[in-house]
Amino acid sequence: MNLSASQQVKADLARLVPLFESRFLLPFADGEAPHLAEAMVYSLQAGGKRIRPVLCMLAAEAVGAAAASALSCAVALEYIHTYSLIHDDLPAMDDDDLRRGKPTCHVAFGEGPAILAGDGLLTEAFTHLASDPDLPPSRRVDALRVLGEAAGWRGMVGGQALDLEGEARTRGGEPVTLAGLQQIHRLKTGALLRASLELGAIAGCASREDREALRAAGEAIGLAFQIQDDILDATSTTEAMGKRVGKDEGRGKITYPLLLGLQGARKALQEATERARCQLASLPNPLSLTALATYLAERGA
Amino acid sequence: MNLSASQQVKADLARLVPLFESRFLLPFADGEAPHLAEAMVYSLQAGGKRIRPVLCMLAAEAVGAAAASALSCAVALEYIHTYSLIHDDLPAMDDDDLRRGKPTCHVAFGEGPAILAGDGLLTEAFTHLASDPDLPPSRRVDALRVLGEAAGWRGMVGGQALDLEGEARTRGGEPVTLAGLQQIHRLKTGALLRASLELGAIAGCASREDREALRAAGEAIGLAFQIQDDILDATSTTEAMGKRVGKDEGRGKITYPLLLGLQGARKALQEATERARCQLASLPNPLSLTALATYLAERGA
Repeated sequence: MNLSASQQVKADLARLVPLFESRFLLPFADGEAPHLAEAMVYSLQAGGKRIRPVLCMLAAEAVGAAAASALSCAVALEYIHTYSLIHDDLPAMDDDDLRRGKPTCHVAFGEGPAILAGDGLLTEAFTHLASDPDLPPSRRVDALRVLGEAAGWRGMVGGQALDLEGEARTRGGEPVTLAGLQQIHRLKTGALLRASLELGAIAGCASREDREALRAAGEAIGLAFQIQDDILDATSTTEAMGKRVGKDEGRGKITYPLLLGLQGARKALQEATERARCQLASLPNPLSLTALATYLAERGA
Repeated sequence: MNLSASQQVKADLARLVPLFESRFLLPFADGEAPHLAEAMVYSLQAGGKRIRPVLCMLAAEAVGAAAASALSCAVALEYIHTYSLIHDDLPAMDDDDLRRGKPTCHVAFGEGPAILAGDGLLTEAFTHLASDPDLPPSRRVDALRVLGEAAGWRGMVGGQALDLEGEARTRGGEPVTLAGLQQIHRLKTGALLRASLELGAIAGCASREDREALRAAGEAIGLAFQIQDDILDATSTTEAMGKRVGKDEGRGKITYPLLLGLQGARKALQEATERARCQLASLPNPLSLTALATYLAERGA
C-alpha cells in the first residue's frame, strides 16, 4: 500500500471511530444488573480495530451519503462482532483465554456471566438499530433483516457451528476440501463483513446497482480478511497479535496456508483484494473504502 | 376456574398453536449447517405450553384485531423463550439436564452446539419479525424495539444475571429481600410475558389506552406466573413437571414460598391475578385472554 492510502486509512479511523464509540453503552448506565453491564462494556472496550463499523460508515460515504447516516448500523455491527468473540472464546467453543491482549470475558467474569454478556450484546444490537429515530422505518427493517440473516444460523452462527464440527472431523482424520473451508469462512467471517457494507448501502440510500457492488465487494473483502488472518496466525507471534497464535494447526483447524501453502494463500489473498477493488471502482466515492480494503488485506504483513 | 373458562382456554390453544407452529423453522431447511438447525428445532419442538405466543395472539384479539396479525410476533416470542431455556440450562448457568421431559439441548448435542443453537434462535427471532411483509414497517420497528428491550440486558438477560449473582450471595449467607426477589422476576420472567401482550397490542393496532392496559395486565400476569412456578416447584414431583423440581431450595434459590410461606405466596398469586383481570376488563374483547390469565395462575393446582 502506498503512503497516501495508508494515511487515508489512519485519518478515516481517527475521524469515524470516536463517532460510533461515543454511542456505545456505558457501564452502570442502568443499576439493575451492574455486573452484566460491566462484562458487556469490558469486552466492548477491549479495543480491536473496529473494522466492521468503519466499513459500514465508509460504504455509506462511498455511495454519496454522510457517514453519520450509518451510525446505528455501525454500533449494531460492533455489538454483534463483540458478542461473537465472547461466545467463541468460551471453553465449550474455541477455549481462548486471551483476546486483544486482555483476559477473555469468561476468564475475567466467569462463564455464566460471559454467556449472558454475549446474549445481552446480541440483543442490544437489534434493539439499538430498531430504536434509531433518524433512519426511516422501512430502511430500519431492511437493515435489521440483512443484519439478522448475516449474523444468524444461515450466516455467522452457522459458520461457527460448521467450524466446530469440522475441527472434530479433522481430528478424526477426515480430509477437508478447499470448498469446505471457503463455505465455513463465507458464513463465519464473510457474512458479517459483507453485511457491514450492505448496511452502509441501506443507511446511505444506495441505488440497487451500488448496493449490489457493495455486497460483492464485501464478499471479496471477507474472503481476503480470512486468508490474511490465517496467514498471520501461521507467521506471527502471540505478542504481536494480542491473542494466542500458531494454535490453529495444533488443534486440527483447517487454514488456507495449510491447504494452499503460504505462497498459494498469498496469491488467493491478492486475487480477492483485486476483486473488491474492481467492484468498488464503480461507486461515486470509493477512495476511503478502497484504501481500507487494501489495508485489511496487507495488515501485519 | 369454572368449566367454561377452562374449555375456552383449551379451544383457544387448539385454534392458535397450529397457526404459529406451522411458521417455525424446519430441520434441514438449509443444508449449510444441518446439525445446528437440528439442535434449534429439537428445542423448539420439545413442546411446552406456548404461553407467550398464545398470550400475544389473544392480546391482538382482545383489542379487536385478528389473531393472525400477530403471527410473526408470536413466532419471535417463542424463539426467544426457547433460546433462553437452552442457555439457562447450560452447566455454567442453572445446570439442568432435563427440560419438558427430554434431555436438555446441551445434553443431547453438546455444550458448544447448544450455545450456538440459542444464539441462532435469538437472532432468528429478530430476523423473522423484521421480515414480516404483512406488518407495516413502523409497527415492525416498534415491535422489534419492545421485544429487544424485554429480552435484553435491561430485561430477561439482566434478570438471569441478577438471579445468578443472587444465588451466589445467598449461598454466602446474605439475606434476600422480597423487593430483591420481585426485581429479579420482573426482569427474568415478567419482561417477556409483558412484552407478549404489548406485541399483540402493537400488531393489533391498539389504542394508546388499550396498549397501556395490556402492558399493566402483562406485568401482573408475569408476577402471578412466577409465584405459581415457585409454588409448583415446592409442591410437585419431577414426573408431573417434566423437569427437576424441589431443587430451588437445595441450591440457595430464593422463592416466594420461602419468603412468604406457602399461604402467603398463594395470597400474593391471587392478588396479582385479580389485578390482571381488572386491567383486561376495559378491553373490547377480553374473554379468551382473561381465561388464559386465570388458567396460568391456577395451573397444576
